[in-house]
Amino acid sequence: MSKANLFYAQSGGVTSVINASACGVIETARKHKDKIGKVYAGLNGIVGALKEELIDTSKESASTIAALRSTPAGAFGSCRYKLKSYQENQREYERLLEVFQAHNIRYFLYNGGGDSQDTANKVAQLSQEVGFPITCIGVPKTVDNDLPITDNCPGFGSVAKYVAVSIREAGLDVASMCESSTKVFVLEVMGRHAGWIAGAAGLASEQEGDAPHIILFPEIPFQKDKFIRKVKSCVKKFGYCAIVVSEGAQNPDGSFLADAGGKDAFGHVQLGGVAPFVAEMIKEETGFKYHWAVSDYLQRSARHIASATDVEQAYAVGKAAVEFALAGKNAVMPAIVRGKGKKYSWRIGEAKLSDVANVEKMMPRNFISRDGFHITDKGREYFAPLIAGEDYPTYKKGLPQYARLKKVLAEKKLKKWRP
Amino acid sequence: MSKANLFYAQSGGVTSVINASACGVIETARKHKDKIGKVYAGLNGIVGALKEELIDTSKESASTIAALRSTPAGAFGSCRYKLKSYQENQREYERLLEVFQAHNIRYFLYNGGGDSQDTANKVAQLSQEVGFPITCIGVPKTVDNDLPITDNCPGFGSVAKYVAVSIREAGLDVASMCESSTKVFVLEVMGRHAGWIAGAAGLASEQEGDAPHIILFPEIPFQKDKFIRKVKSCVKKFGYCAIVVSEGAQNPDGSFLADAGGKDAFGHVQLGGVAPFVAEMIKEETGFKYHWAVSDYLQRSARHIASATDVEQAYAVGKAAVEFALAGKNAVMPAIVRGKGKKYSWRIGEAKLSDVANVEKMMPRNFISRDGFHITDKGREYFAPLIAGEDYPTYKKGLPQYARLKKVLAEKKLKKWRP
Repeated sequence: MSKANLFYAQSGGVTSVINASACGVIETARKHKDKIGKVYAGLNGIVGALKEELIDTSKESASTIAALRSTPAGAFGSCRYKLKSYQENQREYERLLEVFQAHNIRYFLYNGGGDSQDTANKVAQLSQEVGFPITCIGVPKTVDNDLPITDNCPGFGSVAKYVAVSIREAGLDVASMCESSTKVFVLEVMGRHAGWIAGAAGLASEQEGDAPHIILFPEIPFQKDKFIRKVKSCVKKFGYCAIVVSEGAQNPDGSFLADAGGKDAFGHVQLGGVAPFVAEMIKEETGFKYHWAVSDYLQRSARHIASATDVEQAYAVGKAAVEFALAGKNAVMPAIVRGKGKKYSWRIGEAKLSDVANVEKMMPRNFISRDGFHITDKGREYFAPLIAGEDYPTYKKGLPQYARLKKVLAEKKLKKWRP
Repeated sequence: MSKANLFYAQSGGVTSVINASACGVIETARKHKDKIGKVYAGLNGIVGALKEELIDTSKESASTIAALRSTPAGAFGSCRYKLKSYQENQREYERLLEVFQAHNIRYFLYNGGGDSQDTANKVAQLSQEVGFPITCIGVPKTVDNDLPITDNCPGFGSVAKYVAVSIREAGLDVASMCESSTKVFVLEVMGRHAGWIAGAAGLASEQEGDAPHIILFPEIPFQKDKFIRKVKSCVKKFGYCAIVVSEGAQNPDGSFLADAGGKDAFGHVQLGGVAPFVAEMIKEETGFKYHWAVSDYLQRSARHIASATDVEQAYAVGKAAVEFALAGKNAVMPAIVRGKGKKYSWRIGEAKLSDVANVEKMMPRNFISRDGFHITDKGREYFAPLIAGEDYPTYKKGLPQYARLKKVLAEKKLKKWRP
């Protein structure tokens, strides 16, 4: 039998460093040609495996693969597709194993969040049962930073850096104009369930008066009166008020803030996000002139301002995943372990997929200040090293040069997949 | 009599490089201590002159002034305050001259757009008439790129780079998810009257299929059917459609696009901008899942991704303004003159304030493709060199370090200004 092949897939919302993990996987696999044959990547994630659309990464040059390290988004395509449970959709799992068998794939590396780790875990179990054992290794990724065990998730540090840099810069803009113009600025950031990203934006404020002055977390039920009082006091003290609001900010009843005012008289969903909603609320209550921004995908694809720490860690988990597989480990995920010393350090540890799957790590309450509007020193200590360092892409004619893949598909050997 | 002092003020919406011009002014003035005494900067622009709130820049260290070169927004404060005509408000002009006289100010450098150049021109004329001649030099600045004579305006190149980088990155994000998720992405950019900024975003598209696929310019009356057809054809061809829309995009009747659908049943103004409006329109017509972003102030304060060309030019116009003043010129503005060669080159030329004041330079129609949805090679040729080069600020703990000024005010000598 020829050497076993490896299948790698990207899953869920992409980040500015998930391709750095892909780079780590492929470069490491190429160093072990004695043990690993081809690295196939799923075209559009796991869907590529079901459809037998396997990108043959051996057709990509070493320099293209190296360029993945500084290319944002999912170069092989990702997807929002969660395999159902084995009980609910046995055929999907059987198909996966069939495709793996047809292409002599014995290693399955799945790069994603909690759902993906769960899928990888199930595939590991089933493959044992059917007598075609697949080594399944998870590769952590999510801007939401909500995976357990690992100290942080690759992808988070870069979005954290983007929002902190952005609110610092926009804050200076507002500060310079506030005497005669805009007094309130609201930046909406990602994080539907937890305030990790919003919290990281708090790093921008290093001295009293620095932006952001207020952070609205999903963890802290929104109290309008208290909030408006805080806005007024900031404008009085500093001349302006810069606010970061998490898209997941909630009313005391658990409904999303933006949803509350989010429908017009016909029941149409409000077009704006939570930033315009909060800005308009402030205008109504105080009369202050406002501006708002919603960076949306910009924040999670901003490779131009990625955190060097994040890029290194993203690469390292990809590399470690291959090394775990070669060391005979199975159903595990490389995790980032923070050193105990005062100076930040990290190393790669190991987490069982069964411990990672479907567990959401929330932000500790002691990262949020007592009044609920900012982060604590404890929070700062956690966030600061994750945004440290710059790792600039190469530029040509003023624009970052990102990898362009050929995406040559392996020849199909099976019948067409009919879901 | 002691050496004459210089007054410098920042005006209107700030940019990520206006402080580089301030740096050019102050550093150059400091090199000519034989001729120029102090450099005063208006606290919050021209309002600082009226209120006699003059920042004594001699109290700032050389390193702080040097740091201005890489600090976004208006470090001395700016304002949206246009002096009325002399006929309408003679007192304001008299007050300005009174303050200048009290502080022995003989040089007035005004860093702004068309309005500011107009003000500087008027002050030059009046000062002659009253027998206290002030040398008035304009310093060009505007993200809108709408000043005449000068080939481009400092501030524009950096916002242009920001939007081109951002749409490239967000485009890759959408491309990687479009198979199973978001198919349409809309980025709103500044430019209420002209599509310069939106046009520059077109640079990101270098090969067929690259984002952005569609640009909506204020110059091209919006045609819904044609637009929707184009969106559909992009999704069919490329799997997704990335759109850049200028905030000034207009209906055929000249009304702003966002205004048309901008009120709910109670007549409340729609909270969202034009991006959510366009995104929702597409959803209604095609059913495509969308995302949208509004970068607002982020784009004009994004010093972290400033164009090196822009920074150099911003510094150069500040430097040249002082040199013009010392050379005995008056009522002029340094302008950027593009060289004729194929390789981009530029030098500082000279424009009369009377020729610059209140003239808005529109984007040539031949920069926009025939179908109205993209830029031409002619446009590319113009835009490309303006975003060339990176000029990164210094980082500490993962965040850009921006100048913090002491802003020590000169002692007041006059009665309080009552407008």
